[in-house]
Amino acid sequence: MKRIAILTSGGDAPGMNAAIRAVTRKAIHDGMEVYGINYGYAGLVAGDIRKLEIADVGDKVQRGGTFLYSARYPEFATQEGQLKGIEQLKKFGIEGLVVIGGDGSYHGAMALTKHGFPAVGIPGTIDNDIPGTDFTIGFDTAINTVLESMDRIRDTATSHVRTFIIEVMGRNAGDIALWAGVAGGADDIIIPEHDFDVAAVAKKITQGRDRGKKHCLIVLAEGVMGGNEFAEKLAEHGDFHARVSVLGHVVRGGSPSARDRVLASKFGWKAVELLKENKGGLCIGIRDNEIVATDIVDTLENGKHHPDLSLYTLNQEISF
Amino acid sequence: MKRIAILTSGGDAPGMNAAIRAVTRKAIHDGMEVYGINYGYAGLVAGDIRKLEIADVGDKVQRGGTFLYSARYPEFATQEGQLKGIEQLKKFGIEGLVVIGGDGSYHGAMALTKHGFPAVGIPGTIDNDIPGTDFTIGFDTAINTVLESMDRIRDTATSHVRTFIIEVMGRNAGDIALWAGVAGGADDIIIPEHDFDVAAVAKKITQGRDRGKKHCLIVLAEGVMGGNEFAEKLAEHGDFHARVSVLGHVVRGGSPSARDRVLASKFGWKAVELLKENKGGLCIGIRDNEIVATDIVDTLENGKHHPDLSLYTLNQEISF
Amino acid sequence: MKRIAILTSGGDAPGMNAAIRAVTRKAIHDGMEVYGINYGYAGLVAGDIRKLEIADVGDKVQRGGTFLYSARYPEFATQEGQLKGIEQLKKFGIEGLVVIGGDGSYHGAMALTKHGFPAVGIPGTIDNDIPGTDFTIGFDTAINTVLESMDRIRDTATSHVRTFIIEVMGRNAGDIALWAGVAGGADDIIIPEHDFDVAAVAKKITQGRDRGKKHCLIVLAEGVMGGNEFAEKLAEHGDFHARVSVLGHVVRGGSPSARDRVLASKFGWKAVELLKENKGGLCIGIRDNEIVATDIVDTLENGKHHPDLSLYTLNQEISF
Amino acid sequence: MKRIAILTSGGDAPGMNAAIRAVTRKAIHDGMEVYGINYGYAGLVAGDIRKLEIADVGDKVQRGGTFLYSARYPEFATQEGQLKGIEQLKKFGIEGLVVIGGDGSYHGAMALTKHGFPAVGIPGTIDNDIPGTDFTIGFDTAINTVLESMDRIRDTATSHVRTFIIEVMGRNAGDIALWAGVAGGADDIIIPEHDFDVAAVAKKITQGRDRGKKHCLIVLAEGVMGGNEFAEKLAEHGDFHARVSVLGHVVRGGSPSARDRVLASKFGWKAVELLKENKGGLCIGIRDNEIVATDIVDTLENGKHHPDLSLYTLNQEISF
Repeated sequence: MKRIAILTSGGDAPGMNAAIRAVTRKAIHDGMEVYGINYGYAGLVAGDIRKLEIADVGDKVQRGGTFLYSARYPEFATQEGQLKGIEQLKKFGIEGLVVIGGDGSYHGAMALTKHGFPAVGIPGTIDNDIPGTDFTIGFDTAINTVLESMDRIRDTATSHVRTFIIEVMGRNAGDIALWAGVAGGADDIIIPEHDFDVAAVAKKITQGRDRGKKHCLIVLAEGVMGGNEFAEKLAEHGDFHARVSVLGHVVRGGSPSARDRVLASKFGWKAVELLKENKGGLCIGIRDNEIVATDIVDTLENGKHHPDLSLYTLNQEISF
Repeated sequence: MKRIAILTSGGDAPGMNAAIRAVTRKAIHDGMEVYGINYGYAGLVAGDIRKLEIADVGDKVQRGGTFLYSARYPEFATQEGQLKGIEQLKKFGIEGLVVIGGDGSYHGAMALTKHGFPAVGIPGTIDNDIPGTDFTIGFDTAINTVLESMDRIRDTATSHVRTFIIEVMGRNAGDIALWAGVAGGADDIIIPEHDFDVAAVAKKITQGRDRGKKHCLIVLAEGVMGGNEFAEKLAEHGDFHARVSVLGHVVRGGSPSARDRVLASKFGWKAVELLKENKGGLCIGIRDNEIVATDIVDTLENGKHHPDLSLYTLNQEISF
Repeated sequence: MKRIAILTSGGDAPGMNAAIRAVTRKAIHDGMEVYGINYGYAGLVAGDIRKLEIADVGDKVQRGGTFLYSARYPEFATQEGQLKGIEQLKKFGIEGLVVIGGDGSYHGAMALTKHGFPAVGIPGTIDNDIPGTDFTIGFDTAINTVLESMDRIRDTATSHVRTFIIEVMGRNAGDIALWAGVAGGADDIIIPEHDFDVAAVAKKITQGRDRGKKHCLIVLAEGVMGGNEFAEKLAEHGDFHARVSVLGHVVRGGSPSARDRVLASKFGWKAVELLKENKGGLCIGIRDNEIVATDIVDTLENGKHHPDLSLYTLNQEISF
Repeated sequence: MKRIAILTSGGDAPGMNAAIRAVTRKAIHDGMEVYGINYGYAGLVAGDIRKLEIADVGDKVQRGGTFLYSARYPEFATQEGQLKGIEQLKKFGIEGLVVIGGDGSYHGAMALTKHGFPAVGIPGTIDNDIPGTDFTIGFDTAINTVLESMDRIRDTATSHVRTFIIEVMGRNAGDIALWAGVAGGADDIIIPEHDFDVAAVAKKITQGRDRGKKHCLIVLAEGVMGGNEFAEKLAEHGDFHARVSVLGHVVRGGSPSARDRVLASKFGWKAVELLKENKGGLCIGIRDNEIVATDIVDTLENGKHHPDLSLYTLNQEISF
């Protein structure tokens, strides 16, 4: 195909701009034209579409967020919305679409594909909760941002010999909690994918204190419960005076890490390679360190994201 | 005098370690001995005191928090606690004390001075709310940390064309909000020291949107009200869907900024200069870019911290 | 006056964009028009001038460098160049000019003023070497960037028990070396404004090692000599195997620190206040924590920048 | 086995401390004792060995460098040195050794293994040039540090419309240059593993300028040649006034990234698992996202590190 478009959808993630840049440059390099769609599926339906040139993606690789803007647009779940979107794409002579986003965004791409319009999905979300890939764009940056906060909190926790419960994002997935927890030296990590026992957590804190440990950091995935709720449960098992720190939206933005920029560039490059050969209905991922493309319908319907639970065991054995 | 001690008290602040280092090294350089007291006034009363050597403060200048630990210890407000503390100091042959902390810590130092034991206060708190000084140790680091978060939030706010209310620390003072607000390009800054009008804030947001502005950031000092409460008030004036981000304890820690390390070093150096000449009952500060020492009783009783309200006016005129 | 212009000249410095933003917004707020001149004096003479609107300076406060670009342009030292510049300004109906830069840039502003065209200088350079101000825009960011590198180098120096000579920018001024040196816990600081004795440096390194010190960091201002030259001199006094690290252009860029953004905003605001009242021929500064404006001719001809040499003494007494 | 030791050798790399922590904690968790050897093989031969307890590795996961210190020690290439080392280990009742370092360190581990003393190697070097693993500890942090510098340099390059040649570490490997180059949006990447044509680089710069590109960044691996030499070659093909920035030792240190800390923790955990089962003579790695252990003799003699050359092609197609 000769003319493709790109949009970002759902929550923004650091590295989305690097992916847009890679799609744009690779496509132009290969003799194709690229159109950018503002505000995700909302802009698609509204026809907020413009041609992207080489210079439009200059000085963007290092920027957080998405310069094509994003929006949540539940109306795209309807067939009416989808057909209207395809109509807009055809009006511009666009033959294929790259969608960067989370699983909501993938459903849109799947719908377009089912209507016969070739769409390719690129996993972009800090939550790392997309089937078909080991890592999503934005995850690496997010865990580093969480880590910076944990390192800061450790200063205060140590200075005051305190316990902190650090609630981190991740929707229903525990990936951010797991990785940041291991990297930050968390005493315990509480995730949706693994049982936990508040009494055991309490015991661990007590044992650490008895041993002279100055700080105690518990990383809690938001998918389990809120930090304050957990603190209350913990208080039932002892007088821990645990402070709660909720790391919210600050974790979404920021200049992407090296790995996220490289991953985004590879994903973008691959998306163009596929569309160039008229291959749609696919979603891109990295599996076992290799860039792959799998059927988007099958991936969404049968795939499942599995966090790296070996990290959970690891942490149990090295944080005590 | 020949033997002095140092403690940190109240909330930890980045740069406290740099001040401890400066006090220790300067004192040893000048032929004095230095003792470190763990856990603030609690450790003082408990006699948790040890000699500090040159090497004890090596590799500490860059660390957040306080390696002497801190603690809140309301018991030190009693005469009994104070006399017990002086008894401990005398037991170790200590003739003077340096106290690093906020105004609670200063009251302890004032009490010791009134009992005839020379104490010198160094202002260490991220809140910048201590009389007798334009800047406290930790404030510069804290505003840079808030700024990093604001820059990240701006990515998300821009990507989604959203309004964010960013609640920042500062107790009853608006300094963090003012400085971070101006530096971060806040659309509005809400502080305890200045009236505000929610309707006017709402109007400003609307005008920005009408003009095509993609993001809107409101910085709110915690001393005014909570972020969620402000969001509710804002919602009475229009449909802003404002997100709230509370920057809590993550702002306390972290490696101190260059300015905080330099300021802490100067403060520590000055404290030793004073005690060397048997001058106590003073608190150190920086006023009009000069290191000064003022009477601690007078400063606490008659002094008042004034935030730089010219920043408020400035922001009104450049953020619209 | 009703229409002013702004340019950046000389080496770029973090915070220049914040100053441009403040000038633009403040001027528009006060009912004036603002024109941006690209590429400094070169663009002025070439007429590379365009109107700036509110949105042009949106999302710029956090960016390093200067979005108006800069250039060295020695031709502006000639009367011909200066008159050509004034001709261009008049062509656009511009009545006053704000120049952000170092002392070369100030000389251009002084020349325009002498020709009867009101110009106001804002000190923008990482070197902090401009008369009439205690601090320049960019200095605070630069010392924090140097500090980050020093903190990294300390890891390696400690791991290998090594001595590092860290050469830092600053042209003929020692300010960066002094501030970063104190903040980074340098064992010695070598600056143009103070004598030094290589034998004494060597002795200090040896004494530190004998005491068990793991690392030794010497901060050297480029205005004294190059790092390798210093290492050779040091080698004449012993077998130190000192490594040399030259922190060059990496120190120029980067997102400005909170203090640089605030300072830049205040400077920009003040420049507009002055021009609004038809006051030109001035340069802005911060002296003793107060924003001031002094005669640019007098400042350049009789003013002199003095680094804070109390930091030198301080470091001698706390780093050993 | 019941008692193991650990040492770090060669250049320090961020994450080494996280690996030491994981080895220590995991071993203690599994009922073993752990000894730390200071200064690498030099300390091994000298018997600079001490028991590590849980608390010794507390508050270390976030620190750069290695708290066990490192040293280059060519004498360990001799059989005499190796046997002396084994003698020391046996004196302490140590039955197995974990060596963290680069290929020089691996050769030491291989020698011990050949003498019948079980040693396990963990790849720790910023250069990513060790056979048997896709990634080494420290590489991810190093590319992020390079990236921060590149982002800063881009500010200056853009402000002055300049070309920069950025020389990065990597010894004979191009990995740092490749990853940082792609992530930083380099216009060209020059590595030892791929031919390059200075004339083509010059042409690319010219084409970029003609298209209005403001900055040009060339990332050069030190294994190819020095930055100044490359600048001279480039100058033969046009008047580019390219600036050279050499990112040296500042890239070695710093707090490790999330990924490096997680990788180090996994490697350390795995090393103990192997030694617990009396398996030595192995080196650990991550291959296709899985932790593996391969024969150290075979890996060193027949293995070869391959940089991800798909990044080279990718960059050619998206940076123009």
